Amino acid sequence: MLLQTNSTATRYAAAATEYVAVDGISYAHRRVGKSTDLPLICLQHFTGTLDNWDPQVIDGLARERQVITIDNAGIGNSGGETPDNVQDMAKTAVSIITALGITKCDLLGFSLGGFIAQTIAITHPQLFRKILLIGTAPQGTLALHSFPELVGRAFSKPPAEGYLYLFATSSEKSREKIKAAQARFMERENDRDKQTSMPAIQAQIKALTRWGTDPVTLNLGSITHPVLIVQGSSDEMMNSASSVELFKQIPNAILTFYPDSSHGSFFQYPEMFVDEANSFLDKFM
Amino acid sequence: MLLQTNSTATRYAAAATEYVAVDGISYAHRRVGKSTDLPLICLQHFTGTLDNWDPQVIDGLARERQVITIDNAGIGNSGGETPDNVQDMAKTAVSIITALGITKCDLLGFSLGGFIAQTIAITHPQLFRKILLIGTAPQGTLALHSFPELVGRAFSKPPAEGYLYLFATSSEKSREKIKAAQARFMERENDRDKQTSMPAIQAQIKALTRWGTDPVTLNLGSITHPVLIVQGSSDEMMNSASSVELFKQIPNAILTFYPDSSHGSFFQYPEMFVDEANSFLDKFM
Repeated sequence: MLLQTNSTATRYAAAATEYVAVDGISYAHRRVGKSTDLPLICLQHFTGTLDNWDPQVIDGLARERQVITIDNAGIGNSGGETPDNVQDMAKTAVSIITALGITKCDLLGFSLGGFIAQTIAITHPQLFRKILLIGTAPQGTLALHSFPELVGRAFSKPPAEGYLYLFATSSEKSREKIKAAQARFMERENDRDKQTSMPAIQAQIKALTRWGTDPVTLNLGSITHPVLIVQGSSDEMMNSASSVELFKQIPNAILTFYPDSSHGSFFQYPEMFVDEANSFLDKFM
Repeated sequence: MLLQTNSTATRYAAAATEYVAVDGISYAHRRVGKSTDLPLICLQHFTGTLDNWDPQVIDGLARERQVITIDNAGIGNSGGETPDNVQDMAKTAVSIITALGITKCDLLGFSLGGFIAQTIAITHPQLFRKILLIGTAPQGTLALHSFPELVGRAFSKPPAEGYLYLFATSSEKSREKIKAAQARFMERENDRDKQTSMPAIQAQIKALTRWGTDPVTLNLGSITHPVLIVQGSSDEMMNSASSVELFKQIPNAILTFYPDSSHGSFFQYPEMFVDEANSFLDKFM
């Protein structure tokens, strides 16, 4: 497969990995879709790299805008060290967005990426127009207190099965749809990201757990952006009910739950999600 | 404005009222959009007639299918007497659909219409493909125990203000959007429905209250159809949390909440709703 530079990439699986330097550290990212005034920046989940975005979802979003996925510090092909707290991850995300020359964008945060998105929506509100929070939770969520134990159970399984354990429900239908997403992750043959290292994973586990156990510092009621919250019916990691809490606290938010789905809700229903996200990005005020 | 028959109507505001007879009683309905194998049947809320469907919503849904709105017994220009219970309303709805020659359709139930839709999804599952439940609640919902008092408060206001009291939140933004929907209701100049009579309203009040107070008879877990549940963030009449209960009980349901909205959620966000409903009807399995 021929890799395409940012000016020509129409398929995420064929978009070249590019790099931008901040303070001497090189950060990996990929762009797909025509350059637009308001690109959509995507912030990834625990252990995930540029290769863990569903290309069907990214390509669907990129039909109408430029989509940019970024690896945070110490993840995939990005340099630097992964911090053990969301606040420092948030600072890095803002630095990368700024280094890309972006002054205004939309933001999609998935899981841990959603913690970062909540943080920078409040610390840098002027940088964002609209925000999508997928499979995520507010600070203080009780389910995250036992995040290390959940990860321990997932990591005790073979990797593909561990992913299904967290991202699918136990139903055959949900598992099959998430397996299909896993197959889509593999459409990209060349220029793949490095797997996330064990020290980075350990730092992320600490950051995720602290999101649940540290004192609540963010006032989600101060987020004035339009927000789309999407969650699966049965996400054990975040506790699906956490998304109702996000909805209640963020003044201008839409909330959608998908049926029979866990942490991988939007990869399980890629067509529905792309339609809803594009409608939200294009029309919701 | 020239009224259009069912074969030509492309705008709900211009669709002629048609009539179908069941057991010697004439039932009013309107059709818009090209004839399709799977029309979408719409069942209306408490006091509402054919004139209380938002034409922007109906026209948006009718871009891709035929939409048929029907007046139940004793409502608008339909003959017969309004029953004081949902079960009899459900029987009439099935009779009208069958008399229209329909053997399979999609179903949209709004509020009281959603009670009827839940009922006939279970009594006549083979008649329906997909179901939309808007601003509604399962049997036994506590909020409905005080439905007569809520209606009393609404009816003590001038009619337009009473509608805003139930269908909008107290925010200026929500009120303005629902006022815009009220203006759209008036786009139709000729061949309007008769206002719902006081005896019909009294029977509906009894039926709505009984939905909350009578014993629960429906097993929502037996609904296997794809279902889209839509609700406002702050619907006092149904209690918004009731939609979470619907979502938890119906196995294959999507749930969406809109922000800063009450009982008129989908009239407040017509563009978003039309996009989501069309995506659900065309793509969700």
